[in-house]
Amino acid sequence: MDHFSDRLASSIVARRSLVCVGLDPVMERMPPALLERHRPAAAAGEDEAVAACFAEFCAGVIEAVAGTAACVKPQAAFFEQYGAPGWRALTETVACARAHDLPVILDVKRGDIASTGVAYRRAAFGGAPGFTAPVAGLAADAVTVSPYLGDDALTPFVDACADGRGVFVLVRTSNPGAGLLQELDVDGRPLYLHVAGAVARLGAPHVGDHGYSDVGAVVGATAPAALRAVRAALPHAFLLIPGVGAQGGATEALGELKVGDAGGYVVNASRSIIYAWQEGEADYRRAAADAADALRRELGPPG
Amino acid sequence: MDHFSDRLASSIVARRSLVCVGLDPVMERMPPALLERHRPAAAAGEDEAVAACFAEFCAGVIEAVAGTAACVKPQAAFFEQYGAPGWRALTETVACARAHDLPVILDVKRGDIASTGVAYRRAAFGGAPGFTAPVAGLAADAVTVSPYLGDDALTPFVDACADGRGVFVLVRTSNPGAGLLQELDVDGRPLYLHVAGAVARLGAPHVGDHGYSDVGAVVGATAPAALRAVRAALPHAFLLIPGVGAQGGATEALGELKVGDAGGYVVNASRSIIYAWQEGEADYRRAAADAADALRRELGPPG
Repeated sequence: MDHFSDRLASSIVARRSLVCVGLDPVMERMPPALLERHRPAAAAGEDEAVAACFAEFCAGVIEAVAGTAACVKPQAAFFEQYGAPGWRALTETVACARAHDLPVILDVKRGDIASTGVAYRRAAFGGAPGFTAPVAGLAADAVTVSPYLGDDALTPFVDACADGRGVFVLVRTSNPGAGLLQELDVDGRPLYLHVAGAVARLGAPHVGDHGYSDVGAVVGATAPAALRAVRAALPHAFLLIPGVGAQGGATEALGELKVGDAGGYVVNASRSIIYAWQEGEADYRRAAADAADALRRELGPPG
Repeated sequence: MDHFSDRLASSIVARRSLVCVGLDPVMERMPPALLERHRPAAAAGEDEAVAACFAEFCAGVIEAVAGTAACVKPQAAFFEQYGAPGWRALTETVACARAHDLPVILDVKRGDIASTGVAYRRAAFGGAPGFTAPVAGLAADAVTVSPYLGDDALTPFVDACADGRGVFVLVRTSNPGAGLLQELDVDGRPLYLHVAGAVARLGAPHVGDHGYSDVGAVVGATAPAALRAVRAALPHAFLLIPGVGAQGGATEALGELKVGDAGGYVVNASRSIIYAWQEGEADYRRAAADAADALRRELGPPG
């Protein structure tokens, strides 16, 4: 049976890399040469022009990091800003990553009632119903999901694990305001550990050959104590760890979280890799490749 | 100053209606005449065909309910399934509602770190930066937002209240699994009331001439005790109340929640209105108009 967790583990082992490259394209930081090439002839073509610029930029980054990153994480928000053309650029970006054999974690943080969740699942992974053929959707490998609505919000995505897809549930996020709800004390434990309990329960039936579940957790590097607690609660889950690089989280303490032959986590860096060219290297692709490789070495081997 | 809450209140008062019509288009329930008209010539055009069908269907519903509904709530998930064409249909649906002077609550339940939240805000409401002109985005009036990431997730949208936009924060949702997190006891109060506290705090600076805040709350009709508690905690907020109709919530107890000249809430019904044609009326538009008017009468006058 095809498991997302096995595809991710295989990529980590083959590339000896725990790096996830976040694809967060923003107009203000596009390389000048790309901006020049895509400048629209008229204001009416703004969305199309930006979307084409983003698609080329992301393709360049993907190609550059394909040897050193274990996976990529496109952030849907940055594409959605530009409407239908932006969505098309997101679709192309997912397809480009898959063409380079890079698992794609679609960062959408969706979460809704069950009937709506099925629609969001289809948007991420495809499936029936179209008129006569199943819809394609974005054809991502995995998706991030928000737990506020409870099991209803998670189950439609967890069900897709049987079709080889993966889910990362927000448990303890990396942002400054994360504590407002996530750190609230519930029966002597922070709320986020109650969410981790739900992840363990939902993920138990979906474990691949490498020993990891297809249902993982998002835990920020900016909260080291939470990282240790979540790893203890979820010894078989892949952790998606944002918050290093631009957000300031440290990588030193991550080594102790390693489990199994593929480490059991990936560390996401977005801006510090894709905009590394702004630190002096002329070519954004070479700068991204160098930054991804530097993080790969910093994180050490997976096993 | 232009306030979202004043536009919504004016619409409620003018139409004497507390009804929000949810626009949740699904292939399986499109009227046969529309399916026939939009059937694609080849499987390659599936997404375009479904999107065109949805756009026509939603335009028909909007026109039919424009006199009896206070506002509409398109659910983004149902459009996202069909990729870029689906997003275009969503854009057209929002524009159609605004052309009928119906405030649009875009149901997206987004929630992310601050820099990403700004991108989601732009997707919903538009704004700079494009190449030379501000991007249009979906140009909705208000948006639903998920609170799991804390203030960071809410603030980018709350900031848009200064530009006449509105926000509805998920507080106590209508789905069966809502209790998993939302009802957890934190310091003697359910978690959802802690979220309501954040809504009160964030909404206090954004109150319009009708006395309502531009920052409202989503509270399901399926949880009557929660409805009363949230109303007590948020006497100046607009409540967006889903869960009647197909989800089974009752409308009898809603009258006691009324505050001010415009009631201070809208009750959303989606499937029971837009698919009322499946109960026997041949024309889906007339069936939707009748179902919306029946709910309007059931809810009584706003004041």
